[in-house]
Amino acid sequence: MPDLERLNAHYQAMPPVAAMRIRATGFDGDCLRLHAPLDANLNDKGCAFGGSLAGLMTLGGWGLLTLKLEAAGLDAEVYVADSQLRYLKPLYADLMAEARLEPGTDWDNVLRTFRERGRARAVVQAVVRGPDGEPVADLGGRFALLRAP
Amino acid sequence: MPDLERLNAHYQAMPPVAAMRIRATGFDGDCLRLHAPLDANLNDKGCAFGGSLAGLMTLGGWGLLTLKLEAAGLDAEVYVADSQLRYLKPLYADLMAEARLEPGTDWDNVLRTFRERGRARAVVQAVVRGPDGEPVADLGGRFALLRAP
Repeated sequence: MPDLERLNAHYQAMPPVAAMRIRATGFDGDCLRLHAPLDANLNDKGCAFGGSLAGLMTLGGWGLLTLKLEAAGLDAEVYVADSQLRYLKPLYADLMAEARLEPGTDWDNVLRTFRERGRARAVVQAVVRGPDGEPVADLGGRFALLRAP
Repeated sequence: MPDLERLNAHYQAMPPVAAMRIRATGFDGDCLRLHAPLDANLNDKGCAFGGSLAGLMTLGGWGLLTLKLEAAGLDAEVYVADSQLRYLKPLYADLMAEARLEPGTDWDNVLRTFRERGRARAVVQAVVRGPDGEPVADLGGRFALLRAP
C-alpha cells in the first residue's frame, strides 16, 4: 500500500480522527499536508474548533515522523510528548495543515540515535493557513520515537 | 436551563465535540469537571488520542470561563489564545478532566478589567488524571474574554 494510503488507513482507524474527517493529502519527503472539512470541525461560533486545529496539527507531526521513519526503513512508535499552540485568528474555511521538522534539525543524527539507542526525539512545526495563505494557528511539538516492540 | 445543562447543549452543538462525546459533569464555582468515554477517543495504540486530550482540556478552560462569566452576570465570548500541553503517560480509561483558574489569579480584577474595557485575559490550568489519580496530561492556556457583540 502506498505510504499515504497506509497513513490515512491509520488515521481512519482512530474514531475521533475519523469523526473530524482528517486526511493526509500530500508528502514530498519533508512536508506532510493534511485536510479536514470545516463542517465536521465547527465550534459554537461557526468557525474551526480549537481542539480540531490542535488535533490536526498534532496528527500532522505524528504522521510526518511516521512517514520519515518508514522511509528510512525503521519500525517505530511515535508519541507526542508536549506541544505549544497559538490560535492566531478564526478560520471560516476547510482546515489545511502543513507539518515539517523544526528548521535546523539534523535528521541523520536523529536516525543514528534511534538506531543506536532504540529511541530518539524530534521537534515538529505545524501550521494551519487560511484561504489567503496567512497562518491561523501553529504548533511546535516534541515527539518521542521508540523502537516498535 | 441550569448552567451545566446549557454548557453541555453548547458542547453538543459542535460536531467534533459531539463525536468525542465530551460532557461537563460538575462545577462548584472554581473547578469544572468533564468526561469523555475512551471508546470515542482511541488512538492507534488503544489508548486516549492526544488530540482528544487537547480538545477536552481546551474545552474545559473555555467552559470554566464561560460559566464563571455567566455567574458574574456577564455576556462574553471566550476564545483560546494559546496553550502549552504535556502528555505524561498513556491513558487506558475514560478521559476525566478538571479545569481551574491559574493559582493566584485575581478574578475580581479580571471582571473589573472586562467591565471597563470590554475585554480581558485569563489563564486556565487543566489536567486529565488516570484511574489512580495521577496526571496523564496537562494544559496551561491563555484565553481572551470579549464582550459579546
